[in-house]
Amino acid sequence: MSTLDRLKNAAGPKGFSEDAAEIAPHLVEWRGKYKGHTPLLLKPQTTAEVSAILAICHETHTAIVPQGGNTGLVGGQIPLDGEILLSLSRMNRIRSIEPGALICEAGTILADAQRAADAAERYFPLSLAPEGSCTIGGNLSTNAGGVNVLRYGNARDLVLGLEVVLADGRVLDMLRTLRKDNTGYDLKQMFIGAEGTLGVITAAALKLFARPQARETAFVAMRDPAAAVELLARLQAATGGLVSAFELMPRIGLELVLAHIPQTADPLATPSPWYALVEATSGAAMPLRETLETELARTIGDGLATDATLAGSDARQAALWRLRESMSEAQKHEGASIKHDVSVPIRAIPEFLKQGMALVETIVPGARPVPFGHLGDGNIHFNISVPKGGNNEAFLARWEDMSRAVHDLVHHFGGSISAEHGIGVMKRDDLPLYKSAAEMDVMRALKKTMDPHGILNPGKILIPSP
Amino acid sequence: MSTLDRLKNAAGPKGFSEDAAEIAPHLVEWRGKYKGHTPLLLKPQTTAEVSAILAICHETHTAIVPQGGNTGLVGGQIPLDGEILLSLSRMNRIRSIEPGALICEAGTILADAQRAADAAERYFPLSLAPEGSCTIGGNLSTNAGGVNVLRYGNARDLVLGLEVVLADGRVLDMLRTLRKDNTGYDLKQMFIGAEGTLGVITAAALKLFARPQARETAFVAMRDPAAAVELLARLQAATGGLVSAFELMPRIGLELVLAHIPQTADPLATPSPWYALVEATSGAAMPLRETLETELARTIGDGLATDATLAGSDARQAALWRLRESMSEAQKHEGASIKHDVSVPIRAIPEFLKQGMALVETIVPGARPVPFGHLGDGNIHFNISVPKGGNNEAFLARWEDMSRAVHDLVHHFGGSISAEHGIGVMKRDDLPLYKSAAEMDVMRALKKTMDPHGILNPGKILIPSP
Repeated sequence: MSTLDRLKNAAGPKGFSEDAAEIAPHLVEWRGKYKGHTPLLLKPQTTAEVSAILAICHETHTAIVPQGGNTGLVGGQIPLDGEILLSLSRMNRIRSIEPGALICEAGTILADAQRAADAAERYFPLSLAPEGSCTIGGNLSTNAGGVNVLRYGNARDLVLGLEVVLADGRVLDMLRTLRKDNTGYDLKQMFIGAEGTLGVITAAALKLFARPQARETAFVAMRDPAAAVELLARLQAATGGLVSAFELMPRIGLELVLAHIPQTADPLATPSPWYALVEATSGAAMPLRETLETELARTIGDGLATDATLAGSDARQAALWRLRESMSEAQKHEGASIKHDVSVPIRAIPEFLKQGMALVETIVPGARPVPFGHLGDGNIHFNISVPKGGNNEAFLARWEDMSRAVHDLVHHFGGSISAEHGIGVMKRDDLPLYKSAAEMDVMRALKKTMDPHGILNPGKILIPSP
Repeated sequence: MSTLDRLKNAAGPKGFSEDAAEIAPHLVEWRGKYKGHTPLLLKPQTTAEVSAILAICHETHTAIVPQGGNTGLVGGQIPLDGEILLSLSRMNRIRSIEPGALICEAGTILADAQRAADAAERYFPLSLAPEGSCTIGGNLSTNAGGVNVLRYGNARDLVLGLEVVLADGRVLDMLRTLRKDNTGYDLKQMFIGAEGTLGVITAAALKLFARPQARETAFVAMRDPAAAVELLARLQAATGGLVSAFELMPRIGLELVLAHIPQTADPLATPSPWYALVEATSGAAMPLRETLETELARTIGDGLATDATLAGSDARQAALWRLRESMSEAQKHEGASIKHDVSVPIRAIPEFLKQGMALVETIVPGARPVPFGHLGDGNIHFNISVPKGGNNEAFLARWEDMSRAVHDLVHHFGGSISAEHGIGVMKRDDLPLYKSAAEMDVMRALKKTMDPHGILNPGKILIPSP
């Protein structure tokens, strides 16, 4: 029997497709940046099927690319070299839920996991823009970030246990729901953020939390990012760590939103060079609003902030978030932009922004930096819009020069060239520029140990060994 | 030159000792359970020296055991087979401190790291009984737990970056202080909790937090552990997750403390079968005390708790903690005890305790279980005192039978046979009973990849391969 036939058998009658129309949407990254091809889409429904599939791939040295909701931004989920495509979408059962833990399969859509937690009167805090289509397996394989990292950590921090199928088909059942377990190497850590190159995550035990009962959102104006760093520290001290989001925005970003996005309004009377969108959550019994009011008043009194407004209603909270969440969209209306998903130590943000914005000007005079994002995590979306009236293509032709310069600066500040999106193929060839030879060697050694034939998502993160 | 001479050279003139008197305290585990021997104690002061030492060990296939403060409880730090002993004690510099991160060397004593954070008006939450002598390197190599896990996580969760010397002497510099960094495999995770078997941690970047400004401690009486699990959920909901410790104690434990530990008193008027010691912390601006008072009153009104007292002063808080912290000590006065450091999913605690206490009675009739500990983490110190008036030796002779039965029960509930102490040699041979063959295989494969000659802390966690 041919390998393809063996794989189809292993996946069961409903577990595969060779229909070009069905396969097509799985082959293109959603922005159209990466396009792949495959002879076969596999859609197993059980861990045993995934196990059988990988055993065959291992035996026959057949390359395979795991895919969740296909929302990745660095091409990690695309079969660029004609690999078999392994969609986990049919493995979407919630296996169990208890107050402390939700066990669900890799293909569970993030929003469904959030809803299952909510239905059990608990809270699963992972939240990011594509949550209606991205999957838990993809979230964990890329160690997703999102808007609640400041309070609840990255995806890695939300995992209690994992079920993983190894390259040779063996199943690692580590679906424990323990808060403490020091019995040897914590193997699950290896697969989180590995983008499917060391094993295929088939299920996860996720940490659940008490549902926040109160939520307050503030919009604060300040002179510079240094004031924002200080404000974050003060609010964390005043609330005892209840700040769940702290997003930085420059005036130019707000202006683009006001200009291009309907039904938006400047929340404050006077323009300010920088803004922070701050959210804090607490239990019902804590007077969160009073605490924030007091602290923000003090901050303005001290001259640290120049103005602030606290959203009084859910509708006003949503309106404030809309300003932040429309920032990428608003930039589109201004023409092309060159984007960077970078992080630096929080205290280095002001200086990084100062030098970074100056640097941009030296590379493309008139280019407009619109840096915004998760200041509380040190994660800045350092996006740069084409000069006003400039040529889009000419600007985009400078992407590599610009990125190299920005990434070098990030590296100078001890930062990361991929804060939350991962490496995939997009940043693969740059990785050795910013990691030491020893780190690269150990990564390659792990890959070789866990996937000796190089069948798992080859060419992602690491250049395949010959 | 002999290997020993080469190692001495690499460590520098002050970097070694062959003096039996100086070496002696390093060879005995503090309770006297494990005793080792060594031809040479190395005390390097720099990462470069550690690197040179390991390169020689790798080249000459010379086994070496890293040691921090020698406070481990499972024998992981003892050169049981005459290995070279590598003390990190002279690598104790604080390299840098900033609001978000403290970078210090592996030999830094935990209390010194706490103090350095405090001096910078920040907070490093890792806290455990031996904090005056245990070291950061040991804490991370064992993924230490302690009293603040509920709020701040285990040692693993407090690490931003690591510096590690590999078995062959190469240095992995991963001393980043980033909150988000998705650039390939998160290699630092592999070394945390690996008990020095995959590499030697020489420095760490640790997460710092806002200093808690308010602290409230309550002592609550309840009928059974199920009520304690429910109380924890309610307090987390009311405070929005500000509970930092939730410790369970049985009446027998309190009675032993009251009988044997001077200057202790029952905080409540009427005896109760079970108690919880609860601590919550917050920023200055949050009315933590009022919140807890309201919630505890409601809990008593609902019949969930039967009585409660909130410590009004630092002295009363200390007195309540003394009851909890004296529990092991008080047990000593009652004769021998068989101890287990186990965890189960939090919701399983009531049933585990019920079945576990019945099980103990079937193995040694009259044996007195005194289970207490970190209910909020699912971590119970399931300690069993000799029957009243029973023979200590006869009781201790049953250790293995008792432990096997308790560990089997723990496993039945999806629990862990080592919640926070690690494996070392003590639990090494039991590990394969409770881990799958696939997990053991992957652990062995990682060991082989990272330490091909098996020189790093051989025989700890895993049986050495022949």
